[in-house]
Amino acid sequence: MAAMESDGRAYGREAGTWDPELVEVGPGTPSGELLRRYWHPVATSAEVTPRPREVRILGEDLVLYRDLSGTPGLLEPRCCHRGTTLYFGRVEDDGIRCPYHGWLFGADGTCLDQPCEPDRGLGRPGGRDRYRQPWYPVVEYNGLVFTYMGPADRQPVFPRYDIFEGLDPETEEIEIVDHFAFGGPSVAPCNWFQTHENVMDPYHVFILHVAISGPQFSPQLEIWPTINWQRHDHGISSTQDRPLPDGTVLHRVTEARIPTVRVIATPTLSVLGKTNNLSWALPIDDTTTRVFAMIRKPRGTEAQGMATYAGDKSWFELTEEEHQRFPGDYEAQVGQGAITRHSTERLATSDRGVSMVRRQFKEQVAVVAAGGDPIGVSFDEDEGPVPVLAGNYIVGPDTDLEEIPLSDTLRR
Amino acid sequence: MAAMESDGRAYGREAGTWDPELVEVGPGTPSGELLRRYWHPVATSAEVTPRPREVRILGEDLVLYRDLSGTPGLLEPRCCHRGTTLYFGRVEDDGIRCPYHGWLFGADGTCLDQPCEPDRGLGRPGGRDRYRQPWYPVVEYNGLVFTYMGPADRQPVFPRYDIFEGLDPETEEIEIVDHFAFGGPSVAPCNWFQTHENVMDPYHVFILHVAISGPQFSPQLEIWPTINWQRHDHGISSTQDRPLPDGTVLHRVTEARIPTVRVIATPTLSVLGKTNNLSWALPIDDTTTRVFAMIRKPRGTEAQGMATYAGDKSWFELTEEEHQRFPGDYEAQVGQGAITRHSTERLATSDRGVSMVRRQFKEQVAVVAAGGDPIGVSFDEDEGPVPVLAGNYIVGPDTDLEEIPLSDTLRR
Amino acid sequence: MAAMESDGRAYGREAGTWDPELVEVGPGTPSGELLRRYWHPVATSAEVTPRPREVRILGEDLVLYRDLSGTPGLLEPRCCHRGTTLYFGRVEDDGIRCPYHGWLFGADGTCLDQPCEPDRGLGRPGGRDRYRQPWYPVVEYNGLVFTYMGPADRQPVFPRYDIFEGLDPETEEIEIVDHFAFGGPSVAPCNWFQTHENVMDPYHVFILHVAISGPQFSPQLEIWPTINWQRHDHGISSTQDRPLPDGTVLHRVTEARIPTVRVIATPTLSVLGKTNNLSWALPIDDTTTRVFAMIRKPRGTEAQGMATYAGDKSWFELTEEEHQRFPGDYEAQVGQGAITRHSTERLATSDRGVSMVRRQFKEQVAVVAAGGDPIGVSFDEDEGPVPVLAGNYIVGPDTDLEEIPLSDTLRR
Repeated sequence: MAAMESDGRAYGREAGTWDPELVEVGPGTPSGELLRRYWHPVATSAEVTPRPREVRILGEDLVLYRDLSGTPGLLEPRCCHRGTTLYFGRVEDDGIRCPYHGWLFGADGTCLDQPCEPDRGLGRPGGRDRYRQPWYPVVEYNGLVFTYMGPADRQPVFPRYDIFEGLDPETEEIEIVDHFAFGGPSVAPCNWFQTHENVMDPYHVFILHVAISGPQFSPQLEIWPTINWQRHDHGISSTQDRPLPDGTVLHRVTEARIPTVRVIATPTLSVLGKTNNLSWALPIDDTTTRVFAMIRKPRGTEAQGMATYAGDKSWFELTEEEHQRFPGDYEAQVGQGAITRHSTERLATSDRGVSMVRRQFKEQVAVVAAGGDPIGVSFDEDEGPVPVLAGNYIVGPDTDLEEIPLSDTLRR
Repeated sequence: MAAMESDGRAYGREAGTWDPELVEVGPGTPSGELLRRYWHPVATSAEVTPRPREVRILGEDLVLYRDLSGTPGLLEPRCCHRGTTLYFGRVEDDGIRCPYHGWLFGADGTCLDQPCEPDRGLGRPGGRDRYRQPWYPVVEYNGLVFTYMGPADRQPVFPRYDIFEGLDPETEEIEIVDHFAFGGPSVAPCNWFQTHENVMDPYHVFILHVAISGPQFSPQLEIWPTINWQRHDHGISSTQDRPLPDGTVLHRVTEARIPTVRVIATPTLSVLGKTNNLSWALPIDDTTTRVFAMIRKPRGTEAQGMATYAGDKSWFELTEEEHQRFPGDYEAQVGQGAITRHSTERLATSDRGVSMVRRQFKEQVAVVAAGGDPIGVSFDEDEGPVPVLAGNYIVGPDTDLEEIPLSDTLRR
Repeated sequence: MAAMESDGRAYGREAGTWDPELVEVGPGTPSGELLRRYWHPVATSAEVTPRPREVRILGEDLVLYRDLSGTPGLLEPRCCHRGTTLYFGRVEDDGIRCPYHGWLFGADGTCLDQPCEPDRGLGRPGGRDRYRQPWYPVVEYNGLVFTYMGPADRQPVFPRYDIFEGLDPETEEIEIVDHFAFGGPSVAPCNWFQTHENVMDPYHVFILHVAISGPQFSPQLEIWPTINWQRHDHGISSTQDRPLPDGTVLHRVTEARIPTVRVIATPTLSVLGKTNNLSWALPIDDTTTRVFAMIRKPRGTEAQGMATYAGDKSWFELTEEEHQRFPGDYEAQVGQGAITRHSTERLATSDRGVSMVRRQFKEQVAVVAAGGDPIGVSFDEDEGPVPVLAGNYIVGPDTDLEEIPLSDTLRR
């Protein structure tokens, strides 16, 4: 019976572990420190009001509010005096006041009042200036509130993107939606890297979104394309080239940008040329992820709606059995576990894009650990907006390939 | 006041620990490895369908399904490719397909398709044969699905039992019920050994099931019997001999078989002679246990119904206070804690059967740890069904004691 | 940009830790051993009935019941025989009987019956006297049931308080209420020390209870007083002296007594002179606290009612947003976290009372660790009731300061 020992059965199999440099987001972890060198979205602008809100970002619990003069603030929740949470604080014109003993803090953490101390905190040498509530800087951009949670002396310029520049407010508008990544929920109980590397995995579209759960996108996307991946100094891109019946080629470009940005050509093909949207995966903690998408569109039109399954049901209306029969990105990615275990994976040829994303990310983790600045950050205030590449490009015989991003894949 | 130091008060008492060799069920633990040398029930046949089902057995999470040709499969849930759970897989004629990238696996883990790889996985040396999903063998028997989770080269013959052989399907049938052990629920939040050793504890019947909660079984069982225990190469048995008013003796035999099997004479005395049922305790994990009972009975008759309490209520209908006033096996065994703490027990003379069960089990743990085969396994395919001893035997002056199991207790 | 490194932002801030000698309550911890040298309330008398009740006190799980002759018992839940919980036990005239094998225990843990053992446990040398269920002594006082959970030879006399002596049952009565400390709930999910040290923090009243959530108490209390703190051999006291419009002084005395007792002058000023109430914080475990208050009052009158917020709502009726807008003691203290982190606090001049409570408590922890007896315990059965100091004292020109507790603060 000795021959049976190698029959592959589950007895004695490895439990599996993950690669900490891909998945850890907390302060002090190597990958967490890389993430802390970039700006991250925290909430939509609409969520930031004078009512304090508890948020968790990169494993840190914080309080987010907007003071009565309109300035958003993002502070350590525990008052630096006696530790009561500012979630129960009172928001005033220029800051938030702790309910327990009344200390008032501005958005930059400075202490503006200490009502129970002599002369309201000015009565002693140094006075209330010696106290500062831990804070993070905040920027508001196109309906999202962003923060930078890294060291002060490495704070990069906040990056604007070319696809959102020059908006004509008469005819155009920007909308924030948060159901793109997971086909329904905006928050998923899994590590952020599982959804990030998925962007460089075009093959899953043909299986998960077509063969298993029925065609969900444009019919043209069911044509099997030629797939390539490219490495850039902003991340990894993927090109998918499909010959169309009319002799043209659909040249589709998708990007997974360092660290958490995805730029995807509209899957419905409703937008041709450069794409109109960009998303950020926000690592809430090691096992929770939220994705925010920003879309530019003609005023009054509808943004891409939420996916439907099993006829016309939303993800939230599915029974457990229907979730099994019509799995989508949520089921596939959360189904890898709260944190997938890389050591038991068996990557194949179709996983080349995933490998490239991981390799580049780990290289940048090493750069930061060695004291350097990672790719994709700028300290030049005068630098213009960041150009994106992603889009659906129809390439015919007369197209100037110089104007098409990553057109090398079309020259043969 | 020094004399008060030994007044038995709770101050400074030991918190207590359990004996790991009795209770641990996980892979690699000594007792877990003993359990892995036997076949265990996983689910009822009715529960195994083309809709994948998550099961936990001996602390291992697995996926159980029945393919469209009727074969049950029991696999590691995480796809060996990229780790998405096969719980969201699509069951096909001959296996289950991962929803993420479409790899298809048979019940023995072989990879039957890789649609995103060159030539569907046949395009490279070794091809898809190099991949195998971890699996366990499955046997279906009388309405239950069993698995063997040990090393391949120690896999014993699946044991059939004599009491279920030679069934006449015209007049007889087998039914699976799962409310026997705990008086209501089929699954209890406690270690399996607590319910197993209870089978060799006949004294608790007179207290828990008669004095405390009112007579629940046959009136004859309220007569205090002469109790003995015997050690066998299949487990431990107990005899309970009661003189009946008509001069005969009720000779009752119960068995706790290695490792998790219980064979009990019907407590209602509705079946005389050899018993008609056998149960398995399934250790789901260290702190969760399910018990499956298999009963042979005349076609169309009712199996022993669920116990009632506090008048005519089922266990599930009891208020918390009624659970306190009418405790049964569930309350007594779960009431010992998720895992009882052996170090604080004080066994007495009435616990001799419990001691014997524990001692034999630990001896077999040692046998396996030393590389041997434990008792109760057979590697001989031609061996007939396993004979059981348990039953309610009425012994009169004319009875041939040679035909009565464990009749030594009757010769005096 | 190096200058920005000290801009106080949250990056790299300390997570913070607590001082274990202030907060740990479990057996064997230094502060837990100090707590175990005193009597603690366990439940109200009304809660102690023949239906067994699970209680947790100082991190220990116990079973509390009242036998049919009226005696309360507090026992280790796991039967000393086989470990089934006595929560499912049957209470009888003189004790509680385990449901599994029927052992019967008195309130002092002695074993009174073993029905499955020879001669009911008397048939062997030593017999059932060799078994004893771990127990704690219990005292019933004015509607509360107390226990002492320390070493037998250090058990102090149960302390009675002068303000509850000499009750005239014709005209007076004592009531137990449990909504005082947290403004609604009787149990809060935070460490007990957070609510204890709050008693010596009079400043929070002006902020939390007046400025933030609107005046909740008597208008006189809105006058800012002269605040002092005093150290005693029973704990720490605070005096708050307010000149009243009529030329008299309101001299208010509050006490935080070792270990968990608070004595507060009625905040409504409805009682002048010595106060009519006393409370105990019960550390259920490290992160759960219950507070019991005992009040003496004219028969038939109402005790201080539950606080109302946001108009006329009880704490339990508030929405989450209203809890944020009208925080009270519950929000401020639970808002410090399950266990506050002392290492990140920045105490100021107004926190002097808090510092004094902590310092004295830690000194007593050290006394017990060194083998001594802490302050506030008595071993003299003949000692009279304990005098309290707290109250609202109106001091005019004719008042004899000798009769006013802590009147030193008035001599200037």
